[in-house]
Amino acid sequence: MKLSDLGENRVVAELTRALALGADVRVGAGDDCAVIGRPRDRHWQLLKTDAVIEGVHFLPDEDPRRIGWKALGRAVSDIAAMGGEPRHALITIAAPPTTSFARVRGIYAGLRKSARRFGVSIVGGETARSPGPLFLNVALTGTVERARCILRSGGRPGDALYVTGRLGGSLAGRHLDFTPRLAEARWLTANFSLHAMMDLSDGLAADLPRLAAASRCAFTLEESALPRTAGCTVAQAVTDGEDYELLFALAPRQATALEAAWKQRFPRLALTRIGALRPKSEIRNLKSEIPDVFDHFRQR
Amino acid sequence: MKLSDLGENRVVAELTRALALGADVRVGAGDDCAVIGRPRDRHWQLLKTDAVIEGVHFLPDEDPRRIGWKALGRAVSDIAAMGGEPRHALITIAAPPTTSFARVRGIYAGLRKSARRFGVSIVGGETARSPGPLFLNVALTGTVERARCILRSGGRPGDALYVTGRLGGSLAGRHLDFTPRLAEARWLTANFSLHAMMDLSDGLAADLPRLAAASRCAFTLEESALPRTAGCTVAQAVTDGEDYELLFALAPRQATALEAAWKQRFPRLALTRIGALRPKSEIRNLKSEIPDVFDHFRQR
Repeated sequence: MKLSDLGENRVVAELTRALALGADVRVGAGDDCAVIGRPRDRHWQLLKTDAVIEGVHFLPDEDPRRIGWKALGRAVSDIAAMGGEPRHALITIAAPPTTSFARVRGIYAGLRKSARRFGVSIVGGETARSPGPLFLNVALTGTVERARCILRSGGRPGDALYVTGRLGGSLAGRHLDFTPRLAEARWLTANFSLHAMMDLSDGLAADLPRLAAASRCAFTLEESALPRTAGCTVAQAVTDGEDYELLFALAPRQATALEAAWKQRFPRLALTRIGALRPKSEIRNLKSEIPDVFDHFRQR
Repeated sequence: MKLSDLGENRVVAELTRALALGADVRVGAGDDCAVIGRPRDRHWQLLKTDAVIEGVHFLPDEDPRRIGWKALGRAVSDIAAMGGEPRHALITIAAPPTTSFARVRGIYAGLRKSARRFGVSIVGGETARSPGPLFLNVALTGTVERARCILRSGGRPGDALYVTGRLGGSLAGRHLDFTPRLAEARWLTANFSLHAMMDLSDGLAADLPRLAAASRCAFTLEESALPRTAGCTVAQAVTDGEDYELLFALAPRQATALEAAWKQRFPRLALTRIGALRPKSEIRNLKSEIPDVFDHFRQR
């Protein structure tokens, strides 16, 4: 059995099943970040690790500053999706010995720019030799007020589902220049009682079923409501991936107030109600509504 | 200018120069771990990230359980070298889609075994597709009592230098099965006032000059005293690397008590006084005493 036969979801689920966890682990593998702390602590710590790889997440001739910006931004997006703020980053770069120093310095320039922008301290930089492609791993810590920590698993039947921004077409360029929705997520958790949240990295078609499954819900999706990038089909909007937008669920009675306040606060960023969570018993398999999902181990 | 022209020390130094650090960063890049916390906190947090790569740190046909054991053990060794205890690990595996699931599960079996042994919770497991070799990154947190946190930079002229275990020949097998010196380091920091400590990963010839430089000292090394693995020459003992033993400095007046207590507590593990730190002004360049150092970007 090969990884490509199983697919990413099952590989991760199998590997992380029944891991022994310490008493201070609130959330282990399976959410955007791990959550560490005692049940009554005022702040919890968030932990995330994420890699970008030449030939998978960026092309060899890409501007190295954009590679660095993307690598840290992806992890910041995950911290944001928990409602938290990023703090400390550790960088691993594995590169062939023939790599020019200018390229690696360019990657660091992008990392530094992102770190400055989002309040991150880069506190470690490991290097190693790669016999293959350039490999860039970011480990990132964050903190979140316990009351503002939003998991994937808190969604309830009836919740309204929202996404920020527009979906699809990211590979045409935005995937290297996106802005993690940190300010938006912090504002959301300060002003509304979100039930569940995650960031969209693999595309709505892969990520929405994950949020729904974690919340033990089914979902409905209004295809016509999907906020598509100009020129994108519905299929592209839900499967292209690398949107780095927020997907969240909240009680429908908060919807009107949310939409009005959002327009005031973020007039230039779309916020769209795209569907609802439903009781799991009501609809057995809504996943078939949307096209085949992106999978790291299954080639597109 | 290529990475192989500059060498690892200069690449890391250049990349991590003048990074903007938050007020809670006690130690950034350059030691075995980053150290996070306020100056008077009773406990500080330790952060480490480290990668092992197929074809560099292990061969493609290696027992996957040994790969997992090694990957987490390397990071545990770095936490130990700060005097701390490991806590939470996040794993990134990038593998070709054709990789068998059994292989990845074997790697996780090794990771889990190490995690159980050293009290680590594995709280996150990312997977990605690799177009090249298998790549395994471990991000690890730890905690250390402030008073027991030992940096590389605290060594003083006159300090006695010690190493645990025997050096050299690790690539014949031990590099995949080593036991991080966690118990030994905790015992040392509980009972003695160490001035500086690090773990030996690149070989004494590379690592001792790093400790001495961080402590703004020169050093003397008694070649005849070096605890060599049976069959190893002095050159092999100091350049083979991957020993994962402790190197530390303490006041010479503690030497007798240390050696006696060590024999009682760890009768089966060698502890050897190998030299001393010296005033930097006294001897300009003692590095030439030992052979050319291991460097990740310079082929051996």
